[in-house]
Amino acid sequence: MTVTTPRGFRAGGVAAGLKASGRPDVALVVNDGPSDVAAAVFTANRCKANPVLWSEQVMADRRARAVVLNSGGANCYTGPQGFQTTHASAELVAGKLGIGAVDVVVCSTGLIGEQLDRAALTSGIDAVTERLSGSGGEAAAEAIMTTDTRSKQVVRQGSGFAIGGMAKGAGMLAPALATMLVVITTDAEIDADTAEGALRAATRATFDRLDSDGCMSTNDTVLLMASGASGTSPEAGEFTALLTEVCHDLAQQLLGDAEGAEHDITIEVRNAATEDDALAVGRAVARSNLFKTAVYGKDPNWGRILAAAGTTEAAFDPGALDVAFNGVWICRDGAPGDSRDKVDLSARAVEVTVDLKAGTESATIWTNDLTVAYVHENSAYST
Amino acid sequence: MTVTTPRGFRAGGVAAGLKASGRPDVALVVNDGPSDVAAAVFTANRCKANPVLWSEQVMADRRARAVVLNSGGANCYTGPQGFQTTHASAELVAGKLGIGAVDVVVCSTGLIGEQLDRAALTSGIDAVTERLSGSGGEAAAEAIMTTDTRSKQVVRQGSGFAIGGMAKGAGMLAPALATMLVVITTDAEIDADTAEGALRAATRATFDRLDSDGCMSTNDTVLLMASGASGTSPEAGEFTALLTEVCHDLAQQLLGDAEGAEHDITIEVRNAATEDDALAVGRAVARSNLFKTAVYGKDPNWGRILAAAGTTEAAFDPGALDVAFNGVWICRDGAPGDSRDKVDLSARAVEVTVDLKAGTESATIWTNDLTVAYVHENSAYST
Repeated sequence: MTVTTPRGFRAGGVAAGLKASGRPDVALVVNDGPSDVAAAVFTANRCKANPVLWSEQVMADRRARAVVLNSGGANCYTGPQGFQTTHASAELVAGKLGIGAVDVVVCSTGLIGEQLDRAALTSGIDAVTERLSGSGGEAAAEAIMTTDTRSKQVVRQGSGFAIGGMAKGAGMLAPALATMLVVITTDAEIDADTAEGALRAATRATFDRLDSDGCMSTNDTVLLMASGASGTSPEAGEFTALLTEVCHDLAQQLLGDAEGAEHDITIEVRNAATEDDALAVGRAVARSNLFKTAVYGKDPNWGRILAAAGTTEAAFDPGALDVAFNGVWICRDGAPGDSRDKVDLSARAVEVTVDLKAGTESATIWTNDLTVAYVHENSAYST
Repeated sequence: MTVTTPRGFRAGGVAAGLKASGRPDVALVVNDGPSDVAAAVFTANRCKANPVLWSEQVMADRRARAVVLNSGGANCYTGPQGFQTTHASAELVAGKLGIGAVDVVVCSTGLIGEQLDRAALTSGIDAVTERLSGSGGEAAAEAIMTTDTRSKQVVRQGSGFAIGGMAKGAGMLAPALATMLVVITTDAEIDADTAEGALRAATRATFDRLDSDGCMSTNDTVLLMASGASGTSPEAGEFTALLTEVCHDLAQQLLGDAEGAEHDITIEVRNAATEDDALAVGRAVARSNLFKTAVYGKDPNWGRILAAAGTTEAAFDPGALDVAFNGVWICRDGAPGDSRDKVDLSARAVEVTVDLKAGTESATIWTNDLTVAYVHENSAYST
């Protein structure tokens, strides 16, 4: 149940020695068509990694035949030499598959600021092209893992077509490891406009609302490839809805596997004047270290939520805010409400609700708590 | 060497039982004139504590005769009842001193979302008004401490006048404790415009550039009171320069006593197109949990600095950035430069320099590392 479940795709994963652990670290996913429509969303960070700089060019024509991914190094802030490594790997894949390098997306994840071992990467690409198969999705998903404790895969069936996906890490959940990488495949027959519109809508409501530590990765890539092999052409709305389900499922898998986290926190902001206001308040709360440490301490500290909301421009009356933890409204009208003692934060899932009483719009942001383990993992990563 | 060093001021501090520890928790500083010129800067957080809401009204006429401060409770998000407590304490001080309540600034610090014990506060105010003296600044500075490990005081002498100050906390360094409170006194004879202009200029270059955890407190207050008792009227420029020195000294004392911090980090952003650009990059770096955990781990992780810079709109070429740790330029032109091994982050002071190569402006932001102790202290605070 992975990227090779939809028809028209082969994939594989191998260990090339990029990871010191010797675990699999090079993956390849190939779209055998008949269509080569693709869409991608990249990190909004201005300081982008070389594979993102390359892949943005590849995606200019909204077509792609393959994506090669490596863990064990982000190839980020590695200058012209690093860009040449990315380019060479695309050329190598293209030569093996008999396609053009401009149809090969490249993704990398791992340490920033170090050159990738080009010889190891080359041998990995040689090996993985020999291992491509219609059941190789699982191996590919394993080869992109960094500190992930498990591979992340999903499939959803539509009417006569399917969408599959795999993801790694991290992303804004733990960008120490540089990246959230997502590859989504479908055998639906869709045009480039449909693919792009659907992917933007789906990511906006899912991955874009994961906000674990407020940091924006340098390598984030979400790629959708459509083979058309089902011969089924769904309506754009139907396709977008199913794609959003796929992205939501992967996003929740990422959230549940965030480094060092002990709580998965859902922040719903209700009754905002605009959706942007709801998002602004949700993100401000999600980025408050004080709020996040409080949840780690199982402390329903609603004052820190109001303090975070107060840093935004969103429309609301500070004296009217209500806040609930797990359904208990412990802040009403900006002052103490029901007893804090009714709130139990011992479970992993924590639901925070903020009622702005300023309109009818709402939005949800997902984040994690800030833990001692987060500090340990991210302080020890490159040393 | 404190707020009672300049002529015309009395102060005191007492233990009123607001703190469970029994330590001093109520302070009073009185300006005996002849002048009652004052200026204040309050938190920009929209969700303000009751003492801030009150004190903003007091300061509307840019005059104040006294400031009463308490630790042991922030009186924040405590609704109309909390505002009445603030108002009552100002009335009580005013009655004791024979002045108007509208001339009494109120500051509170401690836990958010709980009512202050009004009886304890009342008895504390009764007691502190009996203890006022021209040498009471030290006692006042101790009574405003929360998790501060030492009181923070300073005096600077000008030509014929002096400026003294005391501070607590915290502020953006550890807003768990709700607040940075700063009281500055001077016996210079200045008008309200000079006082306000000087205070805004001084705080902009000092307290506003402390950014320890990106959180904005609900109670932050910086108050300047001018007695005119020296009879000396300095030029505005001379007064502003000395006031900036006082604020800088207090800011550095706050930085050096931040909760849980193991490193004091100075981030200098050079060669920016505008000062705002330099500040934006400096703040983005200071707020990156990944950067801050890396410093805790003594890891000169320049990639996380570039990733933080890349989230801003500041003018720069990502491929041209240089970054130094303690003067070692380990990133040049957005790629690895000198060896990381030359960087030693074992000392408490860490200097980061970012060269944007986009202009001639510069700015400095001060922050701390993100440590296990920070997480412990802020997760355990209210439970």
